[in-house]
Amino acid sequence: MAPQYAPSLRSRVAPLLLLLQTGFIVIYAFYTEIESNIQVDVETFRNLYAEFQDVNVIVILGFGFLCTFLVRYGFSGSGFNLLVVVMATQWAIILNGIESLYNRGKVRLSLRSLVVAEMCAASALVSIGAVLGKTNPVQLVVIALLEVSGFVLNGWVLQTLLKVRSLNSIMMLHIFGALFGLMLTWILFRKESEQQFEKEKFDRKTGLFSMLGTVFLWMFWPSFNSFLVDSHTPGRKLEVVCSTYLALGVSAVTAAAVSVLSSPRGKFNLRCIMWRLCSLVLSKSVVHQPWEAMTIGFTAAVVSTIGIRYLKSHMLLAFQCHDTCAVLSTHGLPGLLGWLAHLLLQIIDCEDHTTTIRFAVFHICVLLITITISLSMGIITGLLLKWNFWKTPQDKKCFDDQAFWEFPHLSVLK
Amino acid sequence: MAPQYAPSLRSRVAPLLLLLQTGFIVIYAFYTEIESNIQVDVETFRNLYAEFQDVNVIVILGFGFLCTFLVRYGFSGSGFNLLVVVMATQWAIILNGIESLYNRGKVRLSLRSLVVAEMCAASALVSIGAVLGKTNPVQLVVIALLEVSGFVLNGWVLQTLLKVRSLNSIMMLHIFGALFGLMLTWILFRKESEQQFEKEKFDRKTGLFSMLGTVFLWMFWPSFNSFLVDSHTPGRKLEVVCSTYLALGVSAVTAAAVSVLSSPRGKFNLRCIMWRLCSLVLSKSVVHQPWEAMTIGFTAAVVSTIGIRYLKSHMLLAFQCHDTCAVLSTHGLPGLLGWLAHLLLQIIDCEDHTTTIRFAVFHICVLLITITISLSMGIITGLLLKWNFWKTPQDKKCFDDQAFWEFPHLSVLK
Amino acid sequence: MAPQYAPSLRSRVAPLLLLLQTGFIVIYAFYTEIESNIQVDVETFRNLYAEFQDVNVIVILGFGFLCTFLVRYGFSGSGFNLLVVVMATQWAIILNGIESLYNRGKVRLSLRSLVVAEMCAASALVSIGAVLGKTNPVQLVVIALLEVSGFVLNGWVLQTLLKVRSLNSIMMLHIFGALFGLMLTWILFRKESEQQFEKEKFDRKTGLFSMLGTVFLWMFWPSFNSFLVDSHTPGRKLEVVCSTYLALGVSAVTAAAVSVLSSPRGKFNLRCIMWRLCSLVLSKSVVHQPWEAMTIGFTAAVVSTIGIRYLKSHMLLAFQCHDTCAVLSTHGLPGLLGWLAHLLLQIIDCEDHTTTIRFAVFHICVLLITITISLSMGIITGLLLKWNFWKTPQDKKCFDDQAFWEFPHLSVLK
Repeated sequence: MAPQYAPSLRSRVAPLLLLLQTGFIVIYAFYTEIESNIQVDVETFRNLYAEFQDVNVIVILGFGFLCTFLVRYGFSGSGFNLLVVVMATQWAIILNGIESLYNRGKVRLSLRSLVVAEMCAASALVSIGAVLGKTNPVQLVVIALLEVSGFVLNGWVLQTLLKVRSLNSIMMLHIFGALFGLMLTWILFRKESEQQFEKEKFDRKTGLFSMLGTVFLWMFWPSFNSFLVDSHTPGRKLEVVCSTYLALGVSAVTAAAVSVLSSPRGKFNLRCIMWRLCSLVLSKSVVHQPWEAMTIGFTAAVVSTIGIRYLKSHMLLAFQCHDTCAVLSTHGLPGLLGWLAHLLLQIIDCEDHTTTIRFAVFHICVLLITITISLSMGIITGLLLKWNFWKTPQDKKCFDDQAFWEFPHLSVLK
Repeated sequence: MAPQYAPSLRSRVAPLLLLLQTGFIVIYAFYTEIESNIQVDVETFRNLYAEFQDVNVIVILGFGFLCTFLVRYGFSGSGFNLLVVVMATQWAIILNGIESLYNRGKVRLSLRSLVVAEMCAASALVSIGAVLGKTNPVQLVVIALLEVSGFVLNGWVLQTLLKVRSLNSIMMLHIFGALFGLMLTWILFRKESEQQFEKEKFDRKTGLFSMLGTVFLWMFWPSFNSFLVDSHTPGRKLEVVCSTYLALGVSAVTAAAVSVLSSPRGKFNLRCIMWRLCSLVLSKSVVHQPWEAMTIGFTAAVVSTIGIRYLKSHMLLAFQCHDTCAVLSTHGLPGLLGWLAHLLLQIIDCEDHTTTIRFAVFHICVLLITITISLSMGIITGLLLKWNFWKTPQDKKCFDDQAFWEFPHLSVLK
Repeated sequence: MAPQYAPSLRSRVAPLLLLLQTGFIVIYAFYTEIESNIQVDVETFRNLYAEFQDVNVIVILGFGFLCTFLVRYGFSGSGFNLLVVVMATQWAIILNGIESLYNRGKVRLSLRSLVVAEMCAASALVSIGAVLGKTNPVQLVVIALLEVSGFVLNGWVLQTLLKVRSLNSIMMLHIFGALFGLMLTWILFRKESEQQFEKEKFDRKTGLFSMLGTVFLWMFWPSFNSFLVDSHTPGRKLEVVCSTYLALGVSAVTAAAVSVLSSPRGKFNLRCIMWRLCSLVLSKSVVHQPWEAMTIGFTAAVVSTIGIRYLKSHMLLAFQCHDTCAVLSTHGLPGLLGWLAHLLLQIIDCEDHTTTIRFAVFHICVLLITITISLSMGIITGLLLKWNFWKTPQDKKCFDDQAFWEFPHLSVLK
């Protein structure tokens, strides 16, 4: 008979986390310094701090509470999210600083480097959405560290081969994260998921918590999108903020409409609306007119709502790929759409044929490289995680807090 | 026998939303531009963006989660709120820009115009509070669009006839919204509400979600109040922020005290405290001393707590007017009180008799015009909504998510 | 037979709150003015307002929702928190202004004074954590007013005797609050708590609400820590923000690891992780290297997680001291650790022996004075609260909203 309890992670979680954390502290002790030695003026600090906070809210609160929708997986959804973010951020700071480590002997910590690191962590969160509930925290940390490494590597390759600006490569986080996650969940496929996991559902209250996370993502998304714009061009920033805001509004309305339209009884679907909201990837530097942004928002909403309705179950049957949070539809497809819109708008803007073709080739290469790296890193990570050493939870313990948390219903406070 | 299921909205929601949304996109394509072509400096952008975010938090999160208190209506409360806000905001941007459309041929989008549009949307949210749970999303969207039109019309009339500054007319949003909502709910009266709707109650958890919304309203209300103050007078802004903060504090304490005093068993009432908190309307430009603000907060709390306790059931019996969120007591009365305080303080400040009388007449005219327009628009909208075409939910399906949402308890995720 | 219902507080709550509130309004009417008469420039206002909002979020939302974890005490946890904060803040503003009252005849209200007052209120919230659920709202208000008085007195004594800058004395809020709370709960000890209160537990949903509060504390803690740094030195502020952020990250990871390590079945403990996160007290002015901050975070996490696991039950058995929110482990010990780290780092930095010894003596004196005042004020307050007049809830009504709130499950909305 199979064991009734989930395997104890005591001998895995504690050593791994303590070891990694001590390692990070040692690395930080020798190789980092805070930027403050250089002159920082009051205003720049305040502006950056505001942006830092907004991104923080998105990554910690928004993504964290978005994952609380599973009826018995709320503690894990929000708790592991926090754990993953702090590990991935520390790791990303080091990786992003390697170049400056060579040149100056030290990684410089600044608010800007913290935000960039959190964005890398966000791409790890996207990947984790695909395997949510089917992995244990040790695996999540491993996934996060490898995903971040892959993402930074991707940025470095793009920068070296194609001279893509480092901030622009961060735009690929949705595509990279989604594909990475898909490969993971494809390799870690469980038979059980074909008959539907018992606990993979949501109820009124967990739905509201998830709605809360969504609303925060919705409200602070303009900050996330506008962060990558040079702060010396407030006019440009304003454009991005207004466009993003309008696009989000349009996509909310469209997602609601399409979700009703595709429902036999004409009802709204919470998942469609929620997940839809958080996935808008605007090709930031080319949208100049509000209606362009709104059209992108409209199309993205249609594509991803239909994706959530039909693609998810299709992926499961056809490719044995069980995608808990439907990251393909919520991050992958809109990301691709943003990439396409960028290409189209640039082609329309451009009058010179040679430049147009050169840009198209360049743009397609960026995508192909990103896809290649994310797919291969996803497969490698997936294979690594199949190893028994990680004590993957049994099928019956999937989507259940009880496997990882001292269970509150039974244990009373002491 | 009456049908067991709520009527399917498929043929109403989807076409309406898609049509409206496409229409908006077309209008935006031809008639709007983003302000960024003009010079924007970094600091102004940052200040406005912070205010924009705060108002966003109030409108989306604060109002949205305030409406989650109904035990079976949480998804609708927060979800429809979002839907209404984004529709109303897009519409209000166009309406507010009509003047600039005549003069310059284009509506200019800026952060300021977005915030003003969101405030118009807030007045629609106030109205919707009165009919919450008794209407379907199609009706809500129609209400929102008509209410916003009425509110902008009101501002335009005040501006044309009485030379009221456009920002000052926004101050009337609470009175306008509350009266509009009252008329709506009076015309849409259902017999059922006399014996109490079965599902119109709250439980521990939905109460907490609602508390969360309240707390956000409470925290960000000073931003909402101070937005309308000219940003070139930070001293004035500081005054408004401090006054609002103190007034909110005093009103929280007073509401708690009055709610205990008016309870037979000496217990607190969550609704009194929650709804009380969010309704403070300070007559912003005349309060110069902290104690004045505190006294207004005190009086407003007494009036509106007593209103919630006694007025609501009285309104139902005497006028057949079932007011779900007690918007009369939480927005209408405090709004009137703010109007009165403004009048009194101005009279005390003024030494010249002629000016005083002229101001009083002017001030009373502003109120009368607002009341007239809001009442008549409310009646028109109400009559329009009685039309069977809208498929109003049956009495049994009121206050129930199940009529509009794919029900999570039964359906498992796929 | 003991009475079945909790005693009605009608004759206590309402008069006390109304009396206090009217008193405050009178005091404010005669003795305060808003600073705006003096010149305030736009940027300073905006910066201070952002900091004010962040501290507001921490105190109202963070602390408030942290206390919602008790399964039947959510309304009280968040509602009473708000009540206590607004009373304590109003009182602290007056107390902090006494000096300026002497010199200029008026207390000047500014955003800065509001924030300082909220920090004093935060120290009261820490104390209240120790008696949460075992006291009624009247007692909580009395505790808050006395605690704030004690805390301001402490600051005044430190300033007079030892010339400690007033902002630095605020750093002691965690130690002061924790010890004050411990004394309170020691004196108010109930036999019942030895066999575990029936309702002192949490469930999935209340745990998530509490997690929400934690996450907000986590995200805005850097603002809280950096507020006390002079705003004219943005470089210094940046240092504090980065250090706090890293320390929080490290402490989250460490708390998770230690909580798994100390659990027999290798599971996470929500309380350990949650409460751990919010308690970091960085000795702000001496940490210059990221690794120093990270090491402090690491140590604090180990100490306080172990404290929550073992110290709490030990305190109960050995000292009859039932500490609901484990404030000793979450605020007291990390506070002491911060104090110690400050001492050690200063000693290492300092090369001159005489200066070192003088600093050590000074630093120890600061601690001793704080401990003395907090312990004695705690004992006095505790004795005062044993008085029957306050109608302490019976043991059976502890941790139960039903004693204080009109109960939602039974009463339907009218």
